[in-house]
Amino acid sequence: MANEGIHREWASRIRGHEESGHLVESVVEILDCAALCFTEMGFQGTSIDDVARRLGATKGRIYHYFRSKTDLFFEVHREGMTRLMDAVTAAMDAGGTGREKLQRMVEAHALTMMQNVAYEAVVVQGVHLHRLSATTPEQRVILNELMDVRHQFEQLFVQVFHEGQADGSVRETADTSLAVKGILGAVNWMAIWYRPRADESPETQKAMAVEVAGLQIKGVT
Amino acid sequence: MANEGIHREWASRIRGHEESGHLVESVVEILDCAALCFTEMGFQGTSIDDVARRLGATKGRIYHYFRSKTDLFFEVHREGMTRLMDAVTAAMDAGGTGREKLQRMVEAHALTMMQNVAYEAVVVQGVHLHRLSATTPEQRVILNELMDVRHQFEQLFVQVFHEGQADGSVRETADTSLAVKGILGAVNWMAIWYRPRADESPETQKAMAVEVAGLQIKGVT
Repeated sequence: MANEGIHREWASRIRGHEESGHLVESVVEILDCAALCFTEMGFQGTSIDDVARRLGATKGRIYHYFRSKTDLFFEVHREGMTRLMDAVTAAMDAGGTGREKLQRMVEAHALTMMQNVAYEAVVVQGVHLHRLSATTPEQRVILNELMDVRHQFEQLFVQVFHEGQADGSVRETADTSLAVKGILGAVNWMAIWYRPRADESPETQKAMAVEVAGLQIKGVT
Repeated sequence: MANEGIHREWASRIRGHEESGHLVESVVEILDCAALCFTEMGFQGTSIDDVARRLGATKGRIYHYFRSKTDLFFEVHREGMTRLMDAVTAAMDAGGTGREKLQRMVEAHALTMMQNVAYEAVVVQGVHLHRLSATTPEQRVILNELMDVRHQFEQLFVQVFHEGQADGSVRETADTSLAVKGILGAVNWMAIWYRPRADESPETQKAMAVEVAGLQIKGVT
C-alpha cells in the first residue's frame, strides 16, 4: 500500500518522461535512504552527499528528482504522512462502534510508526521544524501545507471520538481535544524510543500496537 | 521551587565570587531568555547574539556565565529536567496507593510542562538531538549525562507503576514499559501543541493537568 502511494504521486508528476516502474523504484530507494539519513543525523546534519554516499549513487541521480535537500526532506515527510493517513483511514472505514474504530485507528497508527520508523521520525522532525520561526518563507509554505494534512489526520480521530460519544462507546465526559492530543502524543512519541529489534516478528509488532492502543482507548471509555 | 533549584545549583558554582542573590537573578534572566529563543528558533537557529538582543544586554554578560551556545542550551535543558524532577518527586513522596501516586505524578508532570513551556520544549529538543549522530563528542558526553537524568525520571514512574500492580490499584496485565512510555509520551507531546492562552488562569492549567493525567491513568487501571 505504501508504495502504491508513492506510485500514484510520482506517476502523475513524471507521466511521459520515463518508464514509470523504474522511476518509481529509483525514487523509493532515494526516499528510503534519505529517511534513514535524516532520522540519524537530522535535517541540519544531513547533506545530499550523505544520501548519495549511502545510496551508492551520484549526487546527480538525486538531483534528477529533487531540487534540494529541503525538497527531499519534505518529500520524505509527505510520504510518511501518506502512509499514516492510508493506514488510519482504512482502519476507520472498516466500521463498528466509535470505540472499535478508535481502537483500530490507534493500532494502525502505532503499527505504521513501527513499520516505517525512519519516515515517521522525519514526520516528527518536520512537526518540530514547523514550530520554529527559523525557516525560510518558501519552507514555511510547504510546512504549512504538510501541517494541514496533519490537522486533517487529527480531525479523523476527533470525528470518530464524537461518533463514540454519540453511540455511547466513548466516555461522554472525556475532553475530546485533550484526549485526542494525548492519544496521538503517546503514539507519536514512539518515534523517539522505538527501534525494531533484530529478531522482531510482525506478530510482535502487531501485539505491541494492540497494547499501545488498548492502554489509550481504555482511558477514554 | 523552580528558582530554588537554580539557586542551589549556581550557588555551589559561584560561591565567593559575587553577591549570590544578584548573580542568581542574572542567570535566571539569561536562562529564561535563552529558553524562549531556543523554543522559537531551535538550537541551530539561535545565536548568543539573539539571546543578548532579547535580553537587552551585551554578549559579554552571557559569556560571563556561559562558555558557548551549547553550554547555554544544555543549562536550559538541565534546568527544565530539574523542575520536572522536583515536581514529580514531591508528588511521589506524598504517599497513597500506586494509582494515587501515579495520578499525582502525571498531573505534576503535565502542570510543569505548562508552567515552564519554553524550558520543557528545550528538553524535548534535547531528547531529539540525542537521537542524532551529528553531535560532537563533547556534546555527546553532556547529552548522555542529561539522558541519564531522563532515564531516572522514567524509572520513577516504572517504580510506582510496580507499586500499584503490587497493591492492586494498577492493572496487573498492563505492559509496564509500554504503559509508562505511552503516559510520558502523551504528556511530553504537550511541548508541541501547548501554548498558554493570554487569559489562562492557574486553575484552568491545573484542571487541564488533572484531565490529561486522568485519561492516562484510567488506561492502566
